[in-house]
Amino acid sequence: MTVGSVAFPDMPAISTIRLNAVSAGIKKTNQLDLMLMELPAGATVAGVFTQNAFCAAPVMVCKQHITQHPRYILVNSGNANACTGEQGITAALDCCKAIEASSSVTHLAHQQVLPFSTGVIGEPLPADKIINAIPALLSGLDKSHWPLAANSIMTTDTCPKGASSTFNYQGETIVVNGISKGAGMINPNMATMLGFIATNATVKQDVLDVLSFNAANQSFNRITIDGDTSTNDSCILVAAGETTCVVDDSNSDLFRLLEKAVNSVYKTLAQAIVRDGEGATKFISVQVEEGATANECLQVAYAIAHSPLVKTACFASDPNWGRIVAAIGYAGIESLNVDNIRVYLDDVLIVENGGRADSYREAAGQEVMNQNEITLRVCLGRGDAAETIWTTDLSHEYVTINAEYRT
Amino acid sequence: MTVGSVAFPDMPAISTIRLNAVSAGIKKTNQLDLMLMELPAGATVAGVFTQNAFCAAPVMVCKQHITQHPRYILVNSGNANACTGEQGITAALDCCKAIEASSSVTHLAHQQVLPFSTGVIGEPLPADKIINAIPALLSGLDKSHWPLAANSIMTTDTCPKGASSTFNYQGETIVVNGISKGAGMINPNMATMLGFIATNATVKQDVLDVLSFNAANQSFNRITIDGDTSTNDSCILVAAGETTCVVDDSNSDLFRLLEKAVNSVYKTLAQAIVRDGEGATKFISVQVEEGATANECLQVAYAIAHSPLVKTACFASDPNWGRIVAAIGYAGIESLNVDNIRVYLDDVLIVENGGRADSYREAAGQEVMNQNEITLRVCLGRGDAAETIWTTDLSHEYVTINAEYRT
Repeated sequence: MTVGSVAFPDMPAISTIRLNAVSAGIKKTNQLDLMLMELPAGATVAGVFTQNAFCAAPVMVCKQHITQHPRYILVNSGNANACTGEQGITAALDCCKAIEASSSVTHLAHQQVLPFSTGVIGEPLPADKIINAIPALLSGLDKSHWPLAANSIMTTDTCPKGASSTFNYQGETIVVNGISKGAGMINPNMATMLGFIATNATVKQDVLDVLSFNAANQSFNRITIDGDTSTNDSCILVAAGETTCVVDDSNSDLFRLLEKAVNSVYKTLAQAIVRDGEGATKFISVQVEEGATANECLQVAYAIAHSPLVKTACFASDPNWGRIVAAIGYAGIESLNVDNIRVYLDDVLIVENGGRADSYREAAGQEVMNQNEITLRVCLGRGDAAETIWTTDLSHEYVTINAEYRT
Repeated sequence: MTVGSVAFPDMPAISTIRLNAVSAGIKKTNQLDLMLMELPAGATVAGVFTQNAFCAAPVMVCKQHITQHPRYILVNSGNANACTGEQGITAALDCCKAIEASSSVTHLAHQQVLPFSTGVIGEPLPADKIINAIPALLSGLDKSHWPLAANSIMTTDTCPKGASSTFNYQGETIVVNGISKGAGMINPNMATMLGFIATNATVKQDVLDVLSFNAANQSFNRITIDGDTSTNDSCILVAAGETTCVVDDSNSDLFRLLEKAVNSVYKTLAQAIVRDGEGATKFISVQVEEGATANECLQVAYAIAHSPLVKTACFASDPNWGRIVAAIGYAGIESLNVDNIRVYLDDVLIVENGGRADSYREAAGQEVMNQNEITLRVCLGRGDAAETIWTTDLSHEYVTINAEYRT
């Protein structure tokens, strides 16, 4: 069950990008669990990866391979291939080599395959199952298979996640398509999150790197469900190089148009992960304004978004604003003057002058909390910086999902 | 329901310290909600207080009054008098003044009363109810009323918490008694936690300050239930000054004996709060060893103890050690070499060389996780520092308690 609508969009084909997904038998049931995306020669590729010190074997391999002109993105769900030591690296490389062996692309090296895994940590990757499924995977590649691909990368997700944006530039249609998966262990710096975004545009590598970094920073790095940063997560941006117009300058109009489209796809995909957060019944925007620095805004926003007390109050639709105030108070901001702080539920002012606002009536707060989309807004009264992050409530269903994940 | 036994102990009277508790009508039901402890003239008093920037009105008052030779400790439960602005300060002072007006202690100033509050944040303190109850409170003071006092300070606690330790020194019996309350919003630096500890010993102020600070640091500042630091919490150590022997030197044998007794009372009280943690079904010790610094040990320990994924796995008795490893990985330790890390469930080695230990069998991990007391032990392989903290699992009951707290 998701909060709000996350209907899968129409995704126009990008003619030189083909996809496929099959069931390789990694997941216990007969679900799709292996996806392949084929990229054209000359595509540029950029990515951001998890900051977790125990980063998974495929992430280590990807960081090496991404500079080798990637031609394939291979993703399995059901097993994270994380904390699997040397054996895990070998398994990931064996899968890349199986693509090299079976693909019809000439002169393909296994270093041109980017492997990704998501699922349980610490179990050996069943590389043989993946390798056996590769011929079927290659034979069914098709440019229309975006929905199939989105379905195959799901773990605890309850729905596939996609986003698409299109614009015209000098007679050419530029498309940005993306798919992502969540849904737990979501925290800044690439949590248990995978995102694959592609455009038909022709984009120079250094410009693509900027686009990828900035878009991830404003989207996937601004969502949190449980504060846990996973070992695997990665977000990849591909530019297929189909257009005659070239994005080679980050000061151009074309760059700005593409940036807008890319950012919107990233943001929709990131918010879809929160809307489908484990056990989520509310979609909560935490908006912190009037900070001295962007960093202190984020500090306060994450203290609120990570507080189990705030999250359970949201689950109960309880305007227990004292818990929000307590979280602001322990966020660790130096010389915070609480008398200057204002707190709002949507547009309802609840706290000012260090206490409950005179104008506040609980009925007004209750009305906001009854909604399934809520904005918690904090004005720190210290400057002009502002940041917004997105999170969920903490429900019984979250505990159920995470207590039973492996059973 | 608590994890393990937290039976209320026998508490020998301290002849010059008298206590009482009544129902003042602050809580909705007819429960005890107001407690008074009377201290003798010449008692020394030390305390540690919440670090929350939104610290509550009574905490602000206490910080002023604690240097004025306190004669009374007044505690209400059911209302935190936090985020109540100027009005909250006035209400706390009015309660102190009511003690001054009604007490038979001669030359008592209201500055010699320490006020404490615990309960819902942001509601005005019903000072009139407290003031009305003060004559009854004063008239029933008795040195045997420690259990009554422990009962009256409870909020979401399911049982009263007490601890006592006694030793002999040169023919005198020295007693240390303490009571505390939890049970949610527990995090280092005085969370929603109140502790009142008293000894009959004669202790010089500067020595008492050291005892109080160190004992709190090794106990109440090493427990976490949900990572939320409250606006109110305080821990007070009283030395009644009844003994002829005087603790005036922190290098003496007597100091070391008293320190041992005080530390043991603090630790028992702090662990009792975790055992009675909201919804707790497990008592979890997180022990981090071989760190380069104590600080990095704490960083790793809190990352594990705060992870909802680790906590829900513990609730499910699931040896899902990948979640422990992921938490170590995102704890933010600089240049962490994961190949040097060992992770144990009790004595069962589960992780080494960056992956699952060859010797590990899931049945052994399962056996540990089935217990209701578990030690998660991490050896970082970086040095000699070590730290231990105590926490609980995250259960359905936690969500229920915190979603329904105000209803």
